[in-house]
Parts: sequence; C-alpha cells; structure tokens
Amino acid sequence: MGDDAYDEPLFFQVMQYAARADRDVVGMVSGDPDWEPPQALRDGLREYADADSDQFQYPPSEGLRELRAEIAERRNVDPARVVVTNGAGEANYLTMARAMERGSGSEFLLTDPVYPYYPGKATMLGGEATKVPVLESGDPDVAAMREAASPETAAILVNTPNNPTGAVYDRETVEALHDVAAENDALLLVDEVYDHFDFSGDFESALTLDSDRVLVTSGYSKSMAITGFRVGYAVFPEELVPEAKTRHMLVNVATNRPGQVAVLRALRETSPDYYEGTRDMLRERIGSFTDALDAAGAAYTSPRGAFYVLARFEDFPGTLSNVETLIDEAGVAGMPGEAFGDAYADWIRFALVTPRADEAASRLADYFA
Amino acid sequence: MGDDAYDEPLFFQVMQYAARADRDVVGMVSGDPDWEPPQALRDGLREYADADSDQFQYPPSEGLRELRAEIAERRNVDPARVVVTNGAGEANYLTMARAMERGSGSEFLLTDPVYPYYPGKATMLGGEATKVPVLESGDPDVAAMREAASPETAAILVNTPNNPTGAVYDRETVEALHDVAAENDALLLVDEVYDHFDFSGDFESALTLDSDRVLVTSGYSKSMAITGFRVGYAVFPEELVPEAKTRHMLVNVATNRPGQVAVLRALRETSPDYYEGTRDMLRERIGSFTDALDAAGAAYTSPRGAFYVLARFEDFPGTLSNVETLIDEAGVAGMPGEAFGDAYADWIRFALVTPRADEAASRLADYFA
Repeated sequence: MGDDAYDEPLFFQVMQYAARADRDVVGMVSGDPDWEPPQALRDGLREYADADSDQFQYPPSEGLRELRAEIAERRNVDPARVVVTNGAGEANYLTMARAMERGSGSEFLLTDPVYPYYPGKATMLGGEATKVPVLESGDPDVAAMREAASPETAAILVNTPNNPTGAVYDRETVEALHDVAAENDALLLVDEVYDHFDFSGDFESALTLDSDRVLVTSGYSKSMAITGFRVGYAVFPEELVPEAKTRHMLVNVATNRPGQVAVLRALRETSPDYYEGTRDMLRERIGSFTDALDAAGAAYTSPRGAFYVLARFEDFPGTLSNVETLIDEAGVAGMPGEAFGDAYADWIRFALVTPRADEAASRLADYFA
Repeated sequence: MGDDAYDEPLFFQVMQYAARADRDVVGMVSGDPDWEPPQALRDGLREYADADSDQFQYPPSEGLRELRAEIAERRNVDPARVVVTNGAGEANYLTMARAMERGSGSEFLLTDPVYPYYPGKATMLGGEATKVPVLESGDPDVAAMREAASPETAAILVNTPNNPTGAVYDRETVEALHDVAAENDALLLVDEVYDHFDFSGDFESALTLDSDRVLVTSGYSKSMAITGFRVGYAVFPEELVPEAKTRHMLVNVATNRPGQVAVLRALRETSPDYYEGTRDMLRERIGSFTDALDAAGAAYTSPRGAFYVLARFEDFPGTLSNVETLIDEAGVAGMPGEAFGDAYADWIRFALVTPRADEAASRLADYFA
C-alpha cells in the first residue's frame, strides 16, 4: 500500500499529541458529534438488551428488512437497491470496489481537498487516486474534472455536503459530474453522510438523477451522533447490487444487529425537530467561531453544510508542526490542512463538535492578536 | 468473482426453502446458537444504553483498549498483536488479505470439506483456492497438504475445532501444517472460532506455537451465542500488524462499540460454568441425535468439537435437491454436503442449534426406516 493509505492516522497522531499536552486543550480534530443521540435510539438499545436470544443472531447479510424498507422509503428507491453496511466507511469501500470490478478503468477522480480515506481506499483496492483542485467556493471544478477524466477513470467520487470545505453542491454541478462520468464509462460515487447538515437548503441527493451510474452512500454516524455504532448504507443501481452484496457478505457477513435495531427505532420515532435542533445549534457555533476568526484576522470558510471550518492564519500554514504549536501555545487542536491534499495545505480544519468552540475561538483570537 | 464466492448463499437458499415449506420443519441449517448469551452481556448492553453520548462515538480503530487487553491475557499474547474485528468473518478476511500482500504466492491451501466462505474470500482477493481432502478422521492429510504446497502457496488456512467435520486437530498436526507452511514461505492461518466447543480436551491454540508465521482468528459469535453482534478478533505476528490495521481502518473504520462494550463486560464477569454448561447441553444433544441416526441406519460423524454432525443416508447423497426432499418429506432442514466440497458430497450437515434436535432425529429415523 502507498503512503496515502497512512494519511488518516494523522487524525489519531494529532489527537494523541493533544492528549499528552501539558495544558487544557479544546479538541476540534475528529468529527465525533458531542451532542445527544435521539432518545428513541437509547430506547431501542435498552429494549434490545432484553430481547429473545434469537434476536441476537445473524441479521440478513444485506441488513434487516425493516431497516432497508425505512431507508428506501426516505431515499425514494427500491429496497432491493439498499445494502446496510458497517458505517458509511464500509459503504464507500463497497462502492469503490464495485467501480474497480467493472473493468472500466482503475483511477478515482477526487477533489482536492479530499477526505483522506478516499485515496487510502483507492490505493488499497489497487487503484490510483487523482485529485483535482476545487474552485474557490469549495465546489468541484467540473471543467478541470472533465480535463482529467479518461477511459482510465473508474469513478468520480465526491462528498456533499463536503468535508472539509463545507460546500453543498447544487444539482447542476452533480449533473455535470454525472455527464463527465458517463462520457468516460465511469461511475459517479456520492458520499452523502452529511445529508442532515445542510444549512443552505440547496442539498439534493444524487439519487434524484435516477441514473444507473450513480451510487450513493450515507449513514447514521453523524445525523444520530453515533459514530461508534457503525450503521450506514449504500444504494446501488439494480444491476450492481449482487456483487456488492457478495463482497459485503465475504468481508463482514453482516452489519451488527444491536446498531441496526437501535437505528431502526430512532428512524421511526425521531421527529424532524431533532435534526433541526442540531442544525440550529451548529449554525450558532459556526457563527460565533467565525466571528472570533474575524477578530483573529484569519481567512476562513463559512460552511453551507457539514460542520467543519477551514481557517488560514497569516504566515502560519496548516502543517502538522504548526498544528502542534497551536496545541501547545493556544490550547486548540485542529487538523492540518495538508492532510487533505495540496489545495488547502495553508489551512487548518476545525471540527465544530465541542461546546467549547467559543472558548477555542477566543484562544485563537488571543494567540494571533 | 468466481462461482465459489456464491457458495454461501446456499445457506440462505435452503433456509428460505424451509421457511416456505408447507409443514413444520426443524431448522438445522445455519450455525446460530439457540441458547442464552451470558447474563453479563445483557447487563453490559443495558448499562451502555444509558452511557454518556461520548461513549457512543468511534472506539479506537483496532478495538477498545480494555477489550484487547482481556483478549491478549486469555490468549497469552502481547495486546499490540490483537485487532478487534467485525466478527471472525472480517478477521479471516484480514488474515487472508495479509497473506496475499506478502507477495509470496496467491494460493490458499484449504481442506475438503471446507467452510465455503474461505474459497469465496480467496477468489474475491484475487487468489486461488486448492482443496485437499481430509483423512477419514476428519483431520487434515498433512502428507497430501505437503504434496499440494508450492512456492505459489500464500497460506494454509484451517479451522479447528472444525466445521463441518467436528475434528479437533492435535498439536502435532498443527505443528506439521506449520512446517509445510514454513517450507514454502507461506503463512498458517488458523480459525479457532469454535475454541470454546472442544469436547475432546485435545484442543490447543496454534498461538502456542509462538511462530511469526501463525495468524489466529476467533470471535464471540458462537461462544457467547451472539452471531449478530459481530465482535471477533485476529492475532497477528508483530511485524504483520500495521498493514492489517490499515486495511481494517480503510474497510470498516472500527468494530461497533455497543458489541465491544457488551462482550468486554461478559468476558470479565462470566464464569467458566457458562461455557461448561453449553458444552454439556451440546454433548447430550449430539448423543441423542446420533443415537437416532443409528436407528435410521445412517453413517455419521461424532464431533469432537464444534456443533455439527455429518450424516450419510444410503442412496441419498447430500445434494441440494435431496436436502429439499428431506425438508418436504421428513420436516428436517440440513445443509447439503456438496456445499463444502467434493469429499463429503454424499453427506448432509446438521447444526445442533435447536432444542428440537431429538424431534429431528426421530423424524429422520422414521423417514429412512
């Protein structure tokens, strides 16, 4: 495996450095929600603990029938197209493997900046990753993507709402990416795990394109604040389902049932208010955090979706070493921009998953004052 | 992917056929325990449902520190060698992938009969599967394995206590297999998921060989009667750990935390009586089931480990079609021997995971009388 496969542990490296620090540090490295999961999720788990022991045995490999039905209804697709996975992480692995198996190229076109697992997975699967810098808005540069695409392209893989830029791709952009994929007999893989964190109102799922080239992944790690439960899913075009199911079965047998049962209950019983409440809380956090960045004289992104802010401080590029300096001297831990590619190497990513985001912001303002 | 990858759904095919049958059927197809999990496991899950929401977030990718420590203590290895996986299924996938990545061959030497996931995984990973018929005792034919091994051999993969033969390999056999692996610069992968189901007293873990060629997998699906929880592990030689961890991270990010927490509690609080009680119950079931097979004039295996009995009825080979006939006409569902390879194609496997094993046995005795 290439170096790319080892990018992600940088997250852990930074978190460990922060944990060892000789002072109080506000952690804004990893995207673990700090808010409460839906009450019904806890209820589901509590009830499950007392279920008959036959409920503790293998669920269907592709996921509990009722859960797939709930997912399919929300996504407006045939339940037969849904595979429940060990988080969106496995879902992305399955869609990328499926793209490789078509025998139509082995290159993945990615954006720069990019979530580092994608190039890591590409390399692990024996493919190559090509990163195309995004526009200043954080949106994909469709013209540059078209330029980079070739018959060697197995898939274009994007993430919207986007980590780390906060962009929410509009429908025209996704359609245009789909066209580029189609022109090169490639697939379009869209990771929509932040689908519940759209502040712009512009998010539209790629599933609405209703194309047999579109594979969509998502999960409940973020929307239900349960990154440790590992329940996600992939929606495949019908003819790509069987081999994806086989790989899922041969790698994992099935996704854990306690998690599936709890998520099913939460899907059924959680009102839209829960998600709206989370968005409101995040909007507020983002607002006061970026206000403080203004005070610090930093450039920054104002996320239209997801919950990350990229900030650029003058003469202070987003290297691992500068991130460590910020931990020691300001007491704030972010993620080096260089972890996401070259395009935002000067930036530092802050995950707004702490009630102390305000405190972090004023520490940054003081430090850079 | 080759045909092998599609063997396992035969399990589901048979179970679905049994479910659709127009009569009462005793199900003995799949290896889902029908007994109670340890009480502490339910306690662990119940307590977890009320834990702080930060306990619902990503565990370390390689598994909870305390869980790895408990596993390492029981297996008498360094915790750094343990990776907690999504069941023994993912553990086997990781060890097989690791064997391929060494660049020392791409062939897996397996036994015939064999658990059908192994050849399926080999094919998925781009390797080949070679099956070597076992001895009449169900033990591996070491001489034939040596004959079949070559520099093309990436690994020898065995399962003890064995599904489906019920053999428990003695230490000399495992040592001899290790020698064959070493002679061909291959690894020895040992799936010990039935380690708690040794009725013979002869089981010894391959980890006692203390060799840097030995990779051992196991899990809690069977020993704690929780096939749906997906908590297993692999123990790697130290120098093979890093890439295995990376693959685990890139495929699954981590193993679900509710399951890890519940298993950890159960490991800590469950007395040996629980496991001894299960073995006693199974010994009794096996005894009365095989007595009835005697009455039916069938040949059968008397398992020294695991919980499967292979039976051969005169002029009634273990084809899918005959298995369906038994469902319709005798009301007993087993697994076609042909699913496990050629060596036991005349046999039918019965999983003793139903309190109605006696009933099934007398139905078989009546049918073949």
